[in-house]
Amino acid sequence: MSVVLHDYWRSSASYRVRIALNLKGIGYGRVPVDLVAGEQRGPDHRALNPQGLVPVLRIDGLVLTQSLAILDYLEETRPEPPLLPADPAGRARVRALSQAIACEIHPVANLRVLDRVEALAGPAARADWTRDTIAAGLEAVEALLDHPAFTGRFCHGDTPTLADCTLVPQLYNASRWSVPCGHLPRITAVASTCASHPAFDQAHPERCKPAKVQAAGPGR
Amino acid sequence: MSVVLHDYWRSSASYRVRIALNLKGIGYGRVPVDLVAGEQRGPDHRALNPQGLVPVLRIDGLVLTQSLAILDYLEETRPEPPLLPADPAGRARVRALSQAIACEIHPVANLRVLDRVEALAGPAARADWTRDTIAAGLEAVEALLDHPAFTGRFCHGDTPTLADCTLVPQLYNASRWSVPCGHLPRITAVASTCASHPAFDQAHPERCKPAKVQAAGPGR
Repeated sequence: MSVVLHDYWRSSASYRVRIALNLKGIGYGRVPVDLVAGEQRGPDHRALNPQGLVPVLRIDGLVLTQSLAILDYLEETRPEPPLLPADPAGRARVRALSQAIACEIHPVANLRVLDRVEALAGPAARADWTRDTIAAGLEAVEALLDHPAFTGRFCHGDTPTLADCTLVPQLYNASRWSVPCGHLPRITAVASTCASHPAFDQAHPERCKPAKVQAAGPGR
Repeated sequence: MSVVLHDYWRSSASYRVRIALNLKGIGYGRVPVDLVAGEQRGPDHRALNPQGLVPVLRIDGLVLTQSLAILDYLEETRPEPPLLPADPAGRARVRALSQAIACEIHPVANLRVLDRVEALAGPAARADWTRDTIAAGLEAVEALLDHPAFTGRFCHGDTPTLADCTLVPQLYNASRWSVPCGHLPRITAVASTCASHPAFDQAHPERCKPAKVQAAGPGR
């Protein structure tokens, strides 16, 4: 049975799942959902996910939503290669790092929230809100990475985990908004390691951009 | 070795962990961190959690952060009674429900974000923002509960799961902000079941309020 990811090329949460699928070597097809055009709120997508969000993963006859829940499902059903450490303390640290991004940064700077900020206070407020949220959130992640257990090339050890699957898409967003990260040495080192890993590279939004967007040039 | 929860009585994320500790029968002490007074940003708390957030759980010689990561740790190290179903599909559904609240509603309506909204657009905008975020989020959760696998008195089956630990604190917030939930029958039914369960009752903010707040009456 084929695996199908309903995603948007620039969605951080979609990007997390693409990385994890690649790391686990799970082949999948993609159905693009254009968030800027509002397709996520249309009846076809709502029938899959009443929340009107991407990603949605169709796998094993199931329709799965919420990117971190999808990552845990993949880990439980396709345990090799592992994306969580074997020890509960390490697993808790990797999950806390993922959630420091997925719960503290990403939801506060997503398209829906930013549209509302702009409606309240204008486009400059939108840009400030985004940059401040990402900058403060990444500084907290940098502090979390300053931990005796962080000894590796990735966020936790020398192999990629769910924390790296979550961090890299957030750094793509930081880059889009010109949020500087050069003063965050641990994040910069992990980003460099991930950038040279094919599973991360092949999940990059620039490689998943629809042809019409490529022709039209940069948008939001 | 004793278990210590650093929390704030009204923090949703703290409330989730209190419920889970009670459900698992884990005795714990509490160290209150006054979010309104800014204690979470002080050096004592930052030394525990550089993110400056509650809850922090000290357990097994570890310092754990991020409420959902803490809940997974408790599940892995104290599996009885289980707060996740045994099957991967059920686990994915419970996690997706938890994250539909913990990633989509709570971070967009927390104290830090609301202070910023008020600074941009005033107290009326703060109230509208909060109510709209919670109302839309709970409607999406109601739709997720309308699922063939939802057959029980709780969010998933007839015993409490991580989804209930996450939903009940969000409903407390909804009530504080007078967000109506009467038109959401599945949520209302689960809330009623949980309200009569001692593990939920004993974790309620009103039972965890510091004495000085009780004397001063309602604040924010």
